[in-house]
Amino acid sequence: MTRPLVLSAPEPRSLDLIFSQTARDELHDRYDVLDVAPKDIDSIHEENLADARYIIGQPALSRATLAEMTGLRCIFNVESNLIDNMPYDDLFARGIHVVTTGAVFAEPVAELGIAMALCLARDVLEADLAFREGSELWGGAGNQSSQLLSHSNIGIIGFGDLGRALARLLVGFRAEISVYDPWIPPSMLTDAGVNPATLDTVLQSSDTIFVVASVTAENQGFLNAVSFKQMRKGARLILLSRADVVDFADLMAAVRSGHILAASDVFPEEPLPSDHPVRGLKGFLRSAHRAGALDSAFKRMGDMVLEDMSLIDQDLPPMRCKRAERETVFRLRSKPVTTN
Amino acid sequence: MTRPLVLSAPEPRSLDLIFSQTARDELHDRYDVLDVAPKDIDSIHEENLADARYIIGQPALSRATLAEMTGLRCIFNVESNLIDNMPYDDLFARGIHVVTTGAVFAEPVAELGIAMALCLARDVLEADLAFREGSELWGGAGNQSSQLLSHSNIGIIGFGDLGRALARLLVGFRAEISVYDPWIPPSMLTDAGVNPATLDTVLQSSDTIFVVASVTAENQGFLNAVSFKQMRKGARLILLSRADVVDFADLMAAVRSGHILAASDVFPEEPLPSDHPVRGLKGFLRSAHRAGALDSAFKRMGDMVLEDMSLIDQDLPPMRCKRAERETVFRLRSKPVTTN
Amino acid sequence: MTRPLVLSAPEPRSLDLIFSQTARDELHDRYDVLDVAPKDIDSIHEENLADARYIIGQPALSRATLAEMTGLRCIFNVESNLIDNMPYDDLFARGIHVVTTGAVFAEPVAELGIAMALCLARDVLEADLAFREGSELWGGAGNQSSQLLSHSNIGIIGFGDLGRALARLLVGFRAEISVYDPWIPPSMLTDAGVNPATLDTVLQSSDTIFVVASVTAENQGFLNAVSFKQMRKGARLILLSRADVVDFADLMAAVRSGHILAASDVFPEEPLPSDHPVRGLKGFLRSAHRAGALDSAFKRMGDMVLEDMSLIDQDLPPMRCKRAERETVFRLRSKPVTTN
Amino acid sequence: MTRPLVLSAPEPRSLDLIFSQTARDELHDRYDVLDVAPKDIDSIHEENLADARYIIGQPALSRATLAEMTGLRCIFNVESNLIDNMPYDDLFARGIHVVTTGAVFAEPVAELGIAMALCLARDVLEADLAFREGSELWGGAGNQSSQLLSHSNIGIIGFGDLGRALARLLVGFRAEISVYDPWIPPSMLTDAGVNPATLDTVLQSSDTIFVVASVTAENQGFLNAVSFKQMRKGARLILLSRADVVDFADLMAAVRSGHILAASDVFPEEPLPSDHPVRGLKGFLRSAHRAGALDSAFKRMGDMVLEDMSLIDQDLPPMRCKRAERETVFRLRSKPVTTN
Repeated sequence: MTRPLVLSAPEPRSLDLIFSQTARDELHDRYDVLDVAPKDIDSIHEENLADARYIIGQPALSRATLAEMTGLRCIFNVESNLIDNMPYDDLFARGIHVVTTGAVFAEPVAELGIAMALCLARDVLEADLAFREGSELWGGAGNQSSQLLSHSNIGIIGFGDLGRALARLLVGFRAEISVYDPWIPPSMLTDAGVNPATLDTVLQSSDTIFVVASVTAENQGFLNAVSFKQMRKGARLILLSRADVVDFADLMAAVRSGHILAASDVFPEEPLPSDHPVRGLKGFLRSAHRAGALDSAFKRMGDMVLEDMSLIDQDLPPMRCKRAERETVFRLRSKPVTTN
Repeated sequence: MTRPLVLSAPEPRSLDLIFSQTARDELHDRYDVLDVAPKDIDSIHEENLADARYIIGQPALSRATLAEMTGLRCIFNVESNLIDNMPYDDLFARGIHVVTTGAVFAEPVAELGIAMALCLARDVLEADLAFREGSELWGGAGNQSSQLLSHSNIGIIGFGDLGRALARLLVGFRAEISVYDPWIPPSMLTDAGVNPATLDTVLQSSDTIFVVASVTAENQGFLNAVSFKQMRKGARLILLSRADVVDFADLMAAVRSGHILAASDVFPEEPLPSDHPVRGLKGFLRSAHRAGALDSAFKRMGDMVLEDMSLIDQDLPPMRCKRAERETVFRLRSKPVTTN
Repeated sequence: MTRPLVLSAPEPRSLDLIFSQTARDELHDRYDVLDVAPKDIDSIHEENLADARYIIGQPALSRATLAEMTGLRCIFNVESNLIDNMPYDDLFARGIHVVTTGAVFAEPVAELGIAMALCLARDVLEADLAFREGSELWGGAGNQSSQLLSHSNIGIIGFGDLGRALARLLVGFRAEISVYDPWIPPSMLTDAGVNPATLDTVLQSSDTIFVVASVTAENQGFLNAVSFKQMRKGARLILLSRADVVDFADLMAAVRSGHILAASDVFPEEPLPSDHPVRGLKGFLRSAHRAGALDSAFKRMGDMVLEDMSLIDQDLPPMRCKRAERETVFRLRSKPVTTN
Repeated sequence: MTRPLVLSAPEPRSLDLIFSQTARDELHDRYDVLDVAPKDIDSIHEENLADARYIIGQPALSRATLAEMTGLRCIFNVESNLIDNMPYDDLFARGIHVVTTGAVFAEPVAELGIAMALCLARDVLEADLAFREGSELWGGAGNQSSQLLSHSNIGIIGFGDLGRALARLLVGFRAEISVYDPWIPPSMLTDAGVNPATLDTVLQSSDTIFVVASVTAENQGFLNAVSFKQMRKGARLILLSRADVVDFADLMAAVRSGHILAASDVFPEEPLPSDHPVRGLKGFLRSAHRAGALDSAFKRMGDMVLEDMSLIDQDLPPMRCKRAERETVFRLRSKPVTTN
């Protein structure tokens, strides 16, 4: 009995990275898996093209190759940022799903975001450095600028998987959470327990702002000097999605001036030049795009892929991964990662 | 019309520290407030003694003085650690409440505890320090020992106000929380959504352990080398209550050996000698007893005092502050603070 | 300036039913609205066809008419059960969304479901009827078969909007909730705080079972005598979706035998013949398809339609309403209602 | 080795009622249990009096007998309404705890309260009765006065264990809950996620009001015609604590007039005369003091008793049961039950 064919081209991921051993065994048990170098996908045997039910990865696909893939049902983009290297119109017209597994990063990124917010609110790093040197201040003397997250005003810009994960982690803090996301209807934000708000309101009324919006064709650098000036004195901005949504020079200037504090997991260039001024910037907490890249997150990708394959095998739509949408696939601009 | 008399002896706090302006106005509006130096309380005018309905503070009280305080209803200990400087037996026999306001610290201490746990789990400090120096590791390479709090095993030792605040803040993390507290019946822990457990179970099965037990006559140093050895390799211990519940040298040794990571807000001596070895200990995150001492926390003390005075004025029992108990008042050994 | 055109054919609903006055005003403010009798849609002016951006309703559409509707972006099916009266393949190929507003019923239906479950568990009706007649039993004597929902085992069959609403309403009851839904990957159930389970497990291990599965081509009558026999003695089955998912005669027999109790909002025929045996069946609680049909629910439909029109007007995908899916549109078999 | 002595006088309960077999075994394993008829307690052997560490029950105790009970530590009142039949002043002065186990009823009573509220809001009973007779109204036609609990305004009068259980069960309904309880400081209500409110506010702004206040010396009949008139037209009052807190004739009049709907588990006399007018009152849902009296609730009493005995055996204060308070013990007036 023939098993359905899966074309595997998960670069820059690897099957080893994204499947646990158990999941890997299940994959091979249920499917024939053909490893393909992404660049070679147009040249594989036409019978394999016709047989392929799934692609794991985001290889460039020509219109002609796609036309030969008559049994294709779903492309599992496990890098998770959509790039414009396949004929999406044909895919959508034929009802071939293109799905991404980026949701696995929501929880780890949100946890690091909370860590950063708490560190800035309580001056955790500098207090430890002072303690190492014997210059620590005890008790209230060391808390002059400390604030609580509990009962504070928190803003979230962008309410996809990551924004939702943040709101969930914050439940116990009983904060007032305001969200700006023009892609989501207000009543869905209300249903999620957060307050729909304009960008201006979020900027002006938050003690902590988490920036978790994807980069799109329209929103590059939309957070800039004017935005940061609107923020409360001493407020904290935590940048977790992509550096391109902020004017990074303006952000550094706002921190340097002492108006706000900031933390970021993402930077204009990655890796960043060794002489980049953010490295020495006081009031700025840095993390080298480490927020999501946990092994446990990667391994969940394989589980998600298997769950959705299982649904599609039963002629059901995928539910677990996130579908690319006709309306937005060409508007998204988050750069894919090159390392895991 | 005479207002009830309050004797004010809040040292080391002050009324200015613990009352907001609004609360302070309300206090003076509702009561006559007589400031008394704690050492002078035995020598104040006997008429004032007879009139006093409340004491704010924890002044030493002789049996004779107390006997003269015929209208006394409640002592509000705003330092919040009970010391053996008044005839508690008489107080209890007469039904005079002695209450503490330490609950105000639960939320800020719990937040710092979560900050510490996340910092250790994600190596936030060292990653930033490396970034400053240009030696940061990007993406997964910088995450080799990172772990999530979400869905992890968390242990809490001691389940008073602080333990409860931790469990509440952690709700969104959907962790499995096990609690050891021999003073609390198991079904109350279950009701609170945590798992009652033995100390051994907590030690052996937790990825993160929060130590928030009060010091008692029986538990000094009960967490020692044997305990730390039981912990999972790489697990994290966060000490937030008092240093006396651990054998601090053993804790440092367990961290130094690389077996566990630790963070602490409390130390065997405070302030700590400048040459104390914990200052340079890698894998140990330090905070100089700053966890609770936020101005917003102190101000809540005054609100609590007023709310309970209001109940007692109506011949109702106090509810907001925590009552000293006959059974435990002489067993508690947490040292009072000397600075705020 | 021309406003986009909306074709209005909401029968059996009406715009008055589904729009509040405020929403209605907004609709007319933002759009030109052309009322069309559903049967006349093929014969309206071709210019109007070309201009129409939205349809409110589920009129039969021929392939030819659809081809003329070159600007059509979304069909808002406000009855909310999809019937096979339009060329879905063309719609999907062109990326025209077909969306339903049935989610508005989830909360009112779930509330009635909880009411029914509690009534059966506590014998609320018969206890009141006995009280009217003076034959009530006082205290524990009247509680011989009473059970709590709290901490009990609850099964949910089908986990769409309604199943999710049930799980949410039940949060405070801290029950163990097991869910059978073969269209949803197990990890999504786990994320929602419920236990994924087989149908057999749900049947055998639940004290209360909520049946909220849609009728599909495959599942008609899938709950039958064999299923009910698997249920615990005295367990309760609450039927809220459509009668066709159960063998209704078998269900009545299982109740008549005393093995289980049941409640239902839906019936094999609606209205039901006046001599139908379920009318007199002891142990069976009846509601005449009233669970969702609240005015407040209908009014939310209009709000949802406006929110999604607003997104689509900005070239974004609809988010608020539920999309018909290629894979399932022809499998769904829930009969539309004929009255509101 | 001698085991501590327990005097057992649990009438009107019995040890069989309140202890599961496992708990009963544990009781006898840990303690010597001497059964005493409540009326005989003054005449038991003085050695037994001196040895008794615990009493289960609420027997009348003379001052002289109590003086002989030199080892007494705690009286477990398992009926749970405190009556004035023992020298409470002596008990309090000596630090002998008097505790009640009424908390076991909170969850079952709250569940019945929710059932009643939902039944009235959705007309569940009358709709079923109409269905039996073939006069049911289908769909929206049968829903003219239906309302949701979700997102509605809910008032709770009295916020003890039962009020808290109600608030917890209602969490998933995301209602706005206002609470009137003059014995509890406002900030504790806020902490519990409800809004502190005056009685007038609760009456005027609630769609559903749960009356769960204990009867005290001051509050008998405090809810009367004036109160009910303040309620919203069509609002629902659910009476769950004791009939004495309302003027029952006024309540019936308010329901009879059609202004409000009501449900009650408690009545001015229990059992109630067979000709009492509430029996035939339309718009009034009746339950014969059955709300709490579930076997599973009674069995939790024994567990609670054992847990607190275990604490007291370790010289710790009881935590699980509720302590009688000097200030309130003589103000409480809820009549004990005579049957279980």
